[in-house]
Amino acid sequence: MSTHRDTRMSIRTAAGALVMENTPAELTVKRIATAAGVFPNQVTHHFGSKDRLYVDASFARFLRDTARLPRVARTARGPESFATAIARTALSMPSLPPVISSLALARHQPELQVVVSGYLRLLLSRSEHFLGETLTARGWQAKHGVRRATKTFWTSVFGTALAHEAGWAGSHLDVDIAAGLSLQVAD
Amino acid sequence: MSTHRDTRMSIRTAAGALVMENTPAELTVKRIATAAGVFPNQVTHHFGSKDRLYVDASFARFLRDTARLPRVARTARGPESFATAIARTALSMPSLPPVISSLALARHQPELQVVVSGYLRLLLSRSEHFLGETLTARGWQAKHGVRRATKTFWTSVFGTALAHEAGWAGSHLDVDIAAGLSLQVAD
Repeated sequence: MSTHRDTRMSIRTAAGALVMENTPAELTVKRIATAAGVFPNQVTHHFGSKDRLYVDASFARFLRDTARLPRVARTARGPESFATAIARTALSMPSLPPVISSLALARHQPELQVVVSGYLRLLLSRSEHFLGETLTARGWQAKHGVRRATKTFWTSVFGTALAHEAGWAGSHLDVDIAAGLSLQVAD
Repeated sequence: MSTHRDTRMSIRTAAGALVMENTPAELTVKRIATAAGVFPNQVTHHFGSKDRLYVDASFARFLRDTARLPRVARTARGPESFATAIARTALSMPSLPPVISSLALARHQPELQVVVSGYLRLLLSRSEHFLGETLTARGWQAKHGVRRATKTFWTSVFGTALAHEAGWAGSHLDVDIAAGLSLQVAD
């Protein structure tokens, strides 16, 4: 017999896989329920709206994907190659498109903005922690501060993904996300 | 008697005003037709889809709004205050939210990507021209080139607007869009 907790977990796992392949418009409660082996009303019972579940599943995956960044950082020789490497890695995260969709969804739904705000705060605090530790260990510094560097980095990643998916010609590499970090060797 | 050209113009003008107050989901062909004083089928006849008209009207307004940037530039004393001033001005353009909506719309509609791509190319070439002239006149330079600076600037503006409208707490000013331009006084 499945418990409430098992049901939640099945729905989460199913949604986590489905957001990677579907836009919010394509993803229906029925499809999530079928994939999770539950009834549609169980999806809404546990997660409220479908859009809410989309946001939760996208950010859960995104936060997991960001765990790759520290590995990339280890092999970088200087602050510039470090910044370029993490920008490139962030842009290639498979969970970036569903996160952009989640941000776009939240723009017109105040109840989702509260949720997104929480995830972005978590993203920011983890990234600040990681960047702060890296800079200390390497003897580098962020000219305008770690917090500002982190926020600039992520907004630039989001904007680059949004613009390119919308049709902006050219490569991601034309965008100088690394410059926004303003990293340098400490004086 | 109104000509084809008058009809197009009326629809364009009505849509231009409506995109400033409405999301793509809120804006219907019927509302545009009523505001323009035409029949709904005239809207689709002249502009194809409603989404296409949304994109056209948003970017037309946006490209007009960018005309403010040169004025802002004139009063800046150094490359840093110039970069900060144009970032602030770009973020406060009233047409930025409908442009973000247009980019989000185009992500899943290839026929809109062609249209968006054209507008972004125009935005980029005008911005490059403006930045290039400003740098020459002032004796400044873009460390990583004018084209890269321009593209980085706009993607950063788009990402900042997207993230803040989606619920990211804090001010626009936490984001260091200016740094992405990498401007400096020429050697």
